[in-house]
Amino acid sequence: MLALLTLFVTTATVVLTAPASPLRAARAQAATGHVVEVWVAAVPVKWNVVPNGQDAIEHTRFAPVDTTFRTVVYREFTRDFAKPVPNAAGDRGIQGPLIRARVGDTIIVHFRNLDTTFNRPHSMHFHGVHYRFGSDGSYIPGFSGPGANVKPGGTFTYRLVAGGDSAGVWPYHDHSPSMMDSIGGGLYGALSILAQGERRPDREFVVYLESHQGFMTIDGRAFVGNTPVFKARVGETVQWDVLSLGDETHTFHVHGHRWRTIDGAVRDTQVIGPAESFKVRWREDAPGTWLYHCHVESHMMNGMIGIYRVIR
Amino acid sequence: MLALLTLFVTTATVVLTAPASPLRAARAQAATGHVVEVWVAAVPVKWNVVPNGQDAIEHTRFAPVDTTFRTVVYREFTRDFAKPVPNAAGDRGIQGPLIRARVGDTIIVHFRNLDTTFNRPHSMHFHGVHYRFGSDGSYIPGFSGPGANVKPGGTFTYRLVAGGDSAGVWPYHDHSPSMMDSIGGGLYGALSILAQGERRPDREFVVYLESHQGFMTIDGRAFVGNTPVFKARVGETVQWDVLSLGDETHTFHVHGHRWRTIDGAVRDTQVIGPAESFKVRWREDAPGTWLYHCHVESHMMNGMIGIYRVIR
Amino acid sequence: MLALLTLFVTTATVVLTAPASPLRAARAQAATGHVVEVWVAAVPVKWNVVPNGQDAIEHTRFAPVDTTFRTVVYREFTRDFAKPVPNAAGDRGIQGPLIRARVGDTIIVHFRNLDTTFNRPHSMHFHGVHYRFGSDGSYIPGFSGPGANVKPGGTFTYRLVAGGDSAGVWPYHDHSPSMMDSIGGGLYGALSILAQGERRPDREFVVYLESHQGFMTIDGRAFVGNTPVFKARVGETVQWDVLSLGDETHTFHVHGHRWRTIDGAVRDTQVIGPAESFKVRWREDAPGTWLYHCHVESHMMNGMIGIYRVIR
Repeated sequence: MLALLTLFVTTATVVLTAPASPLRAARAQAATGHVVEVWVAAVPVKWNVVPNGQDAIEHTRFAPVDTTFRTVVYREFTRDFAKPVPNAAGDRGIQGPLIRARVGDTIIVHFRNLDTTFNRPHSMHFHGVHYRFGSDGSYIPGFSGPGANVKPGGTFTYRLVAGGDSAGVWPYHDHSPSMMDSIGGGLYGALSILAQGERRPDREFVVYLESHQGFMTIDGRAFVGNTPVFKARVGETVQWDVLSLGDETHTFHVHGHRWRTIDGAVRDTQVIGPAESFKVRWREDAPGTWLYHCHVESHMMNGMIGIYRVIR
Repeated sequence: MLALLTLFVTTATVVLTAPASPLRAARAQAATGHVVEVWVAAVPVKWNVVPNGQDAIEHTRFAPVDTTFRTVVYREFTRDFAKPVPNAAGDRGIQGPLIRARVGDTIIVHFRNLDTTFNRPHSMHFHGVHYRFGSDGSYIPGFSGPGANVKPGGTFTYRLVAGGDSAGVWPYHDHSPSMMDSIGGGLYGALSILAQGERRPDREFVVYLESHQGFMTIDGRAFVGNTPVFKARVGETVQWDVLSLGDETHTFHVHGHRWRTIDGAVRDTQVIGPAESFKVRWREDAPGTWLYHCHVESHMMNGMIGIYRVIR
Repeated sequence: MLALLTLFVTTATVVLTAPASPLRAARAQAATGHVVEVWVAAVPVKWNVVPNGQDAIEHTRFAPVDTTFRTVVYREFTRDFAKPVPNAAGDRGIQGPLIRARVGDTIIVHFRNLDTTFNRPHSMHFHGVHYRFGSDGSYIPGFSGPGANVKPGGTFTYRLVAGGDSAGVWPYHDHSPSMMDSIGGGLYGALSILAQGERRPDREFVVYLESHQGFMTIDGRAFVGNTPVFKARVGETVQWDVLSLGDETHTFHVHGHRWRTIDGAVRDTQVIGPAESFKVRWREDAPGTWLYHCHVESHMMNGMIGIYRVIR
């Protein structure tokens, strides 16, 4: 495959020659963009993967003791970590807050490690955006700084820029020395970055594919009745943010719908490996109670399936 | 990734604004297209994955008792299920009939469940095409109708439309409560839909990648000598319909050939996850006895390999 | 997906109608291109997957006896196999020599089997390039010739042509009767073919993803400190040649960078199945000590991770 050099979408008032320095571009873009500032902490929770205790399709029942675990997740706080912010509607999963920005914005993420359960270090590593090395958040002995190894009680501020090539949906996750256990425990979230001039969809659904407690989960839940029920009306523009972490390859499928990928191909099933991410959009025109699921059969049967309701 | 809104290829006589309702588009297109009507039943068969009893490359031998199983597959019948239709040449695999249509066509599939072996419910769920919710064929307790749970002896008619975004190759498969066992048993098939004005290829090969009886199979067969021997002449246009179901990710490879995907990239090996599907075409110019296979090594060694003969 | 017929990029002096015979195209192109001639032998080596005996991130130690194995790899020799050529800088992995050519070139590979350790037959099978059936190098009982089954002490010459559709990065590997053990043992390498007029990058990094001795390896090495440390300066054009063989699907990720694929999508993580290959390029602008790794978590934790240093 021929890979092209990265081109930067520039703002109207600042002309950059491409390929330009992302940091220079970042500064220029920040001047014309907004500053998105969020407070996110790693907090202990008890999480139940199958709150209603059953797989409604296969008629299997599960005891809470087998589906609940203590873990650490990202949760949003108000300014200066004053108090927790409840997850927004349509964003109630195990994952952290959906951080929304637009190309040109500077994103400042204040992170605090409140992991008093396992007393582990944590961090945040962001995909898709531009940053200096100090904000990379990944642990490399001898090279990485404090942002890669935030001790319990500690705080670190990551400074990110949504460059012209940052439009889309991207994962963020722990990349500290505890990464392996922490991602498996749910310490991940998503960035959603609009291009210049791109309209926000009427509905935005986050579909985070991972495994927890031996189940294959969507947003940390397994089986119809526990996974998110996404809802839309005919005529609305819907956007699916599909992300994946862990060890498995998945194929995202929505019944009764198809989408066109950037290359012009039409799909109704799309492969996604760990840390890949994509968004699909369509104008809704198909009323019904549809299934969305991973089409890897054992994943679907082990919980990675949900319902999408479209009404007129 | 930026996903584009679905655009409909329209017929010459009906102009639609995009994005339009697929059902409206369907009706409009149906007015100018044909009606494709087929009769398909789920029927019990005995299927031998390795009929010649050997892996000719590794010189391993297998007893029929270890490679044969009783199962249920889709088979085409003549009008009103009068009598079975033998599978066409080049389409003799475990999969059901290759249902061919063109964008704008209405596809009517009459399905009958003749599963007297396991007495299980069955259904048909079609990818890539447009349909109302009642023709979805997938079981959702409390929501789905009779088309998702056709009992032994029962019949259901699915009404589908090949929209402008339905051109290509798509799987169909059981999505009833017995889905997991039934797909593993071979209850699947393919749709092949030409775009408006697209020429039919001289040769069309169906390569269905699944596992059966512990073997990795192409069209339900394992190892050179059992898998299909596809044949073409120099100068012919050949089309490979590549589909996959089950749990595994595969990489489809043909020796001595390359193809260009819609994005302009050239490949000779292409990844495919469960329920994904693609077609590749080329004008044949390379005489020889070539291998085609899944390039996941353990899959290739476990049977997912065949021969493609090109003569002058 | 609509697949397009293969189009040949033609030279200025020879106009071909497309699709043309690749062999005819090859001859025409060979007339205007160069002849690349290399000598490659399969030679026994002892290979240590973890030479420094540790995983520096997880602080795990390994004994040499557990990480070293006897195997057979491809190594380049001078003309007529006079003497071995040390692997080039940046190409010191377990894989064979990086064979570089340009569209239009004829590539002649003289292969000698010096496997006196296991006394196995070996061969070379090349992806992406054009050749007559006799140069396919893959064993098919009853059909394949001497190039598919080169006995210890034997020699075979493969004649390949870089067609207009051969630009890019491609694997080559053993496809003889010993293929399964041999690829697992490291008998593979890469072709890097530039398009007509394409500039060579300032830095070219080969990232070969496979498993050896129970570790997940890059160029046959596991863990930071053993895997290649790739280096570049701000302002240089860097190219990553990413290839994979074996059984696993990987997702290639580089920290602090993104790239644009041929379809216009921006990625920082890209899936690759066995025998797939791709190259990504960018103009370097992000100083730092970055990680590159497979983002399948168990692969990363089991060694598939390295360091990329960018200085000003």
